Amino acid sequence: MTNDRNERRLRFALIGGGPGSFIGGVHRIAAELDREIELVAGAFSSDADRSAQAGAAYRIDPARAYPDLATMLAAEAARPDGIDFVTIATPNHHHLPAARAALEAGIAVMSDKPATATLQEARDLADIVAGAAVPYALTYTYSGYPLVREARARIAAGEIGQVVKVIVEYSQGWLAGAVDSKQAAWRLDPGRAGAGGCIADIGVHAFHLAEFVTGLHVTQLLADLGSVVPGRTLDDDAQLLLRFDNGARGALLASQVMIGERNGLRLRIHGTRGGMDWRQETPNRLVIHHGDGRTEIVQAGDASLGSDAMAGLRTPGGHPEGYLEAFANLYRDFATLLRGGAAPLLPGISDGLRGMALIETAVHASREDSGWVHLIV
Amino acid sequence: MTNDRNERRLRFALIGGGPGSFIGGVHRIAAELDREIELVAGAFSSDADRSAQAGAAYRIDPARAYPDLATMLAAEAARPDGIDFVTIATPNHHHLPAARAALEAGIAVMSDKPATATLQEARDLADIVAGAAVPYALTYTYSGYPLVREARARIAAGEIGQVVKVIVEYSQGWLAGAVDSKQAAWRLDPGRAGAGGCIADIGVHAFHLAEFVTGLHVTQLLADLGSVVPGRTLDDDAQLLLRFDNGARGALLASQVMIGERNGLRLRIHGTRGGMDWRQETPNRLVIHHGDGRTEIVQAGDASLGSDAMAGLRTPGGHPEGYLEAFANLYRDFATLLRGGAAPLLPGISDGLRGMALIETAVHASREDSGWVHLIV
Amino acid sequence: MTNDRNERRLRFALIGGGPGSFIGGVHRIAAELDREIELVAGAFSSDADRSAQAGAAYRIDPARAYPDLATMLAAEAARPDGIDFVTIATPNHHHLPAARAALEAGIAVMSDKPATATLQEARDLADIVAGAAVPYALTYTYSGYPLVREARARIAAGEIGQVVKVIVEYSQGWLAGAVDSKQAAWRLDPGRAGAGGCIADIGVHAFHLAEFVTGLHVTQLLADLGSVVPGRTLDDDAQLLLRFDNGARGALLASQVMIGERNGLRLRIHGTRGGMDWRQETPNRLVIHHGDGRTEIVQAGDASLGSDAMAGLRTPGGHPEGYLEAFANLYRDFATLLRGGAAPLLPGISDGLRGMALIETAVHASREDSGWVHLIV
Amino acid sequence: MTNDRNERRLRFALIGGGPGSFIGGVHRIAAELDREIELVAGAFSSDADRSAQAGAAYRIDPARAYPDLATMLAAEAARPDGIDFVTIATPNHHHLPAARAALEAGIAVMSDKPATATLQEARDLADIVAGAAVPYALTYTYSGYPLVREARARIAAGEIGQVVKVIVEYSQGWLAGAVDSKQAAWRLDPGRAGAGGCIADIGVHAFHLAEFVTGLHVTQLLADLGSVVPGRTLDDDAQLLLRFDNGARGALLASQVMIGERNGLRLRIHGTRGGMDWRQETPNRLVIHHGDGRTEIVQAGDASLGSDAMAGLRTPGGHPEGYLEAFANLYRDFATLLRGGAAPLLPGISDGLRGMALIETAVHASREDSGWVHLIV
Repeated sequence: MTNDRNERRLRFALIGGGPGSFIGGVHRIAAELDREIELVAGAFSSDADRSAQAGAAYRIDPARAYPDLATMLAAEAARPDGIDFVTIATPNHHHLPAARAALEAGIAVMSDKPATATLQEARDLADIVAGAAVPYALTYTYSGYPLVREARARIAAGEIGQVVKVIVEYSQGWLAGAVDSKQAAWRLDPGRAGAGGCIADIGVHAFHLAEFVTGLHVTQLLADLGSVVPGRTLDDDAQLLLRFDNGARGALLASQVMIGERNGLRLRIHGTRGGMDWRQETPNRLVIHHGDGRTEIVQAGDASLGSDAMAGLRTPGGHPEGYLEAFANLYRDFATLLRGGAAPLLPGISDGLRGMALIETAVHASREDSGWVHLIV
Repeated sequence: MTNDRNERRLRFALIGGGPGSFIGGVHRIAAELDREIELVAGAFSSDADRSAQAGAAYRIDPARAYPDLATMLAAEAARPDGIDFVTIATPNHHHLPAARAALEAGIAVMSDKPATATLQEARDLADIVAGAAVPYALTYTYSGYPLVREARARIAAGEIGQVVKVIVEYSQGWLAGAVDSKQAAWRLDPGRAGAGGCIADIGVHAFHLAEFVTGLHVTQLLADLGSVVPGRTLDDDAQLLLRFDNGARGALLASQVMIGERNGLRLRIHGTRGGMDWRQETPNRLVIHHGDGRTEIVQAGDASLGSDAMAGLRTPGGHPEGYLEAFANLYRDFATLLRGGAAPLLPGISDGLRGMALIETAVHASREDSGWVHLIV
Repeated sequence: MTNDRNERRLRFALIGGGPGSFIGGVHRIAAELDREIELVAGAFSSDADRSAQAGAAYRIDPARAYPDLATMLAAEAARPDGIDFVTIATPNHHHLPAARAALEAGIAVMSDKPATATLQEARDLADIVAGAAVPYALTYTYSGYPLVREARARIAAGEIGQVVKVIVEYSQGWLAGAVDSKQAAWRLDPGRAGAGGCIADIGVHAFHLAEFVTGLHVTQLLADLGSVVPGRTLDDDAQLLLRFDNGARGALLASQVMIGERNGLRLRIHGTRGGMDWRQETPNRLVIHHGDGRTEIVQAGDASLGSDAMAGLRTPGGHPEGYLEAFANLYRDFATLLRGGAAPLLPGISDGLRGMALIETAVHASREDSGWVHLIV
Repeated sequence: MTNDRNERRLRFALIGGGPGSFIGGVHRIAAELDREIELVAGAFSSDADRSAQAGAAYRIDPARAYPDLATMLAAEAARPDGIDFVTIATPNHHHLPAARAALEAGIAVMSDKPATATLQEARDLADIVAGAAVPYALTYTYSGYPLVREARARIAAGEIGQVVKVIVEYSQGWLAGAVDSKQAAWRLDPGRAGAGGCIADIGVHAFHLAEFVTGLHVTQLLADLGSVVPGRTLDDDAQLLLRFDNGARGALLASQVMIGERNGLRLRIHGTRGGMDWRQETPNRLVIHHGDGRTEIVQAGDASLGSDAMAGLRTPGGHPEGYLEAFANLYRDFATLLRGGAAPLLPGISDGLRGMALIETAVHASREDSGWVHLIV
């Protein structure tokens, strides 16, 4: 069998994603959904037994379930059918070292967000990526939804005029009380999560979504982070006011203590000639407020959709697609990139840098009660 | 016919509400809905002809359509069937003088919000009300919705535990561009509206609703008001961060430039044991997030409703009631007050004072970029 | 004061609507909402004491709370300010005699639906109405909703092409078990309700709505009525298949045993160039499916609304109006009629006849298991 | 590598699913989603070139893209890594011969619905399946949705008491006019689709869903099928009344001519102690109407879900899963079956037989205008 990347499925390894992980399985499904990519290896856990156990669960060749990243990179490099890229699905403090090791070994990287644990690390990573021969991308998953891409394309085409107001919110409730899970533990631990809690876990998703869809950059922000549940070091609730580079006003509300909220990411964008409203929990609809007062519901599969949205759909209208399919769209873009094509919608290190700047700026500004501050990347 | 207030319909006059007014007709319908009150007189306009014209449209006795308030108060005082109260439905700058004149004449007052045009005026009015022999009330209309009252009662009973997070938003789009209407003109004119635009027109409604339902007081706020449409002196978009007296965090987002939004008032309250979500545009539903993760939709007419909500409903479940009926609930409360009963849910001058403090504090803090400031009434 | 009907409020009396009645109060509010009409008298109950008690509750002149209809008609005829019309709000078996007595006394009639208790009675009534000097109208309430009228106007204008499919459903749950209330008692009693239970109580509303909005007539039907709750003589669940005079296919599903359903009237109409969807419980929205695949949400207050809808609205967009306002639109039409104007949308005896034909045809066809039968009025 | 089915991924081939097919790609994604199964071969088209072209698009070994089924079965039987099962994704008239050939060759079968083109074929197939050593299953996709399985489990546990009323509807609009597509062509051709159009394409899905969730069997039906678009031989709109074996009443409304409807499958079930409501286009929610009047929204990921629903979910609450994941649940069940486990929820030949009986009975009864007829399998 040829090893020409255009003639075969791409091969990847997971870093992290071991037993108990939610995101590891998601990466696997998303990557393989279009049969462009397959999971062949992994350093799933820092515990060798657990890594082997995960390998078996993923049904990969036992020889390719490695005890650590260095071993994996060396072993895979020696194989004729070695991996094309790694996916980093670890707590945040491992992101930089893992990405560095892979990139320096000539292995492309798909990384969980946020890019790193600190802004300085992100700057270091940006330098590494700039000098790397292989691509680096970041799974801001929500930018993979077809209707999100539709919104972006319509705004870029001027459909709502000049953007004047943006409200993005991300409401969850799973950290409303004391939570005893592996998922919660590292997110609430500054040593593993970094300086941000809610702002780093979900706020940064909301931030990226707002910038991605509007095509604008946040230039100033005012941050009010709080720890609602007693005893927490990191924030579990974040309220930000925003100013965009075209002068548009905005607000970002993220919370993990709103009981009853599952994964309530919602983006509203209003311009001088219309508005849009998208909700992650009903992702196949996009509400369009036209300038003449008409309200339209655009749905996945509609003939009015543009090419970006259409490319991201795998079923006809009325057959709901969801989170895994959105995630798979990022992997499809990444495969295109690895095969030498263009993937302009796929988040990369510059998005990662902006996200880390958001987190650190917000954490610092809130702690110091600084009022409006510039967002400097 | 007896003149005992308990034996007859109460009689009222409109101040304002002349030709072209939206709110005049609403007051009339709401006041009369339960046949406890009837419109009998009015000083509908500062133009005598227009006042007469309005009187004819309302089908009242032509002799009781007066050219001005002073004339009306004198004439009505001389009648055996004179008015019991006035409703003030004028631009804001007339609120104080009208209320003062009526109260000093021994005539009760139902007033549009905000209470006055300035905080100082509100303080003056509070003194007048304190010394008056007759009641004064304020039409924070949205507090009249049965499901709003249900939410309030449930929170007071501890159903969601301690409140930790409040998001209240009020989104409109009708001032998104240049607007040429009587409704818009005075709201955008500092001479008639006062120091606040959007914050005074709708932000204050959102503020009252949040305090009313939670039973908490805002103690600190951070305000970011803006004038999105070029050339405006007053704000048309307001973003506030809030802190309540129990330590709860909150945000208030009000805007009149979001095209496609009609009257999007929504209140979300989350506590340590649950959450609630209410929307004005579907007012007969209240979403309850229980602490065990169950989501319940409580609807008007449900057997689970408490007495406050039940008292505010006129039809069985499934027969939608709306804005006019909510408004009528305030008038029913006011009638109860005038007949010597108690109406603890009806907004009064203390609510009016708090609203004016909000407006002035927000306008000043935003203009000075003051960061967090105390809300002092 | 002049007695010219154009110069004063119209005066009416209730027949029925005594203590415990739901619909009596609704008629009173709806009739008075626009100040075109006022309640001045009533024969509220066949029990004189209860009639007096109701009169006091309605705050009318005690002298005008009559013990029976005949007394009322005689007494009112003798007054210079006597009634202009009566509203019949009794169980169905009283409809014909009450309407006959009023019309023969030269008093106009507004009647609850269904028109009578039997089709033969409806035919008799039609003859009486044909010979009467004063108007007769019928409160098919749901035809008063502004967005229903909008749907009708758009279909009449050809917006969805030729109608090919109609689904109308009316789901309630309040009779799902044994119910012990005055409201339930007469509806379940053939002696007072007539031959139909659910079909007569709500099915006939659905039927009228479908014909009203499409502008078509049902020519054939197939009926499957059932009594789900043991021991009932009358139907509490009705399933009908329909054929309209233009060949369109349809279904009518009405039930009173669907626990959790409040007043779930919904109408969907599809044509060769589009479709529409309206729901009574969110009455201020109308979904339009355009022929090119776009879905639009038309809302009360939108600039795109036609004159029929606009005329039925009392508040700006986003201020919900509901059942009482829809009902009031019928009374406004009736006032127009009484003052000599035209009210082409107001249901009359021909609608009443068609409804009675529906009930009797459906009951008979279901009992005999007749398959498709013609609907003959 | 071992060939023990428990130690490796199962291997399958597609029959049909060639270029232009929608359902072929869906089967591939669904089968592979959990890494329990992989596509390795196919007889994708009766045209050898097109089959090879499809094989390349699926990225399978070119040697395993066969020109016809017989060749494939022979070749795969000769391989040590031959297929474990085939998926039949062809027009209906190929279902029986394909299933027969595979089963007789000892190859398990996963088949698209309806089972065959005629009831007689289905009876023949049932005999073949009864005598086969390997499993046969049927992709009634909608029974794979987690919340559908939740509804089924709750009803089986008695949560809504005895079922009394079922409304199932399936509304589409894509065949509202003349349609020129491969998808439409065979569905409208009696030679390839069989005797039923809409009833066979989607009505049978609705029918299966209703029986699956209620656990009841339809014993009698009354059918009204129509061809709305001129020139069609097969039905494009179907209205059925149903009677279940416990006496429950029901209606099934399926249509492909309702413009603006995408894939509007909805199931409502009401019992003596509650009700349920599920919609395919928002599949992660299940409305529960409790007997005490409370309405609850159960969502994917909720702690209250039972084991059947939980087993079908791959992400936490709030991360929408859709059609592909539901489909994958059927394949996961099928893998369990092939490995010797039990899959009681997976549809099989008895469901297929009932579906074919529905189609033929409905088509015949409608054509003959037979009124109520028994559904005899």
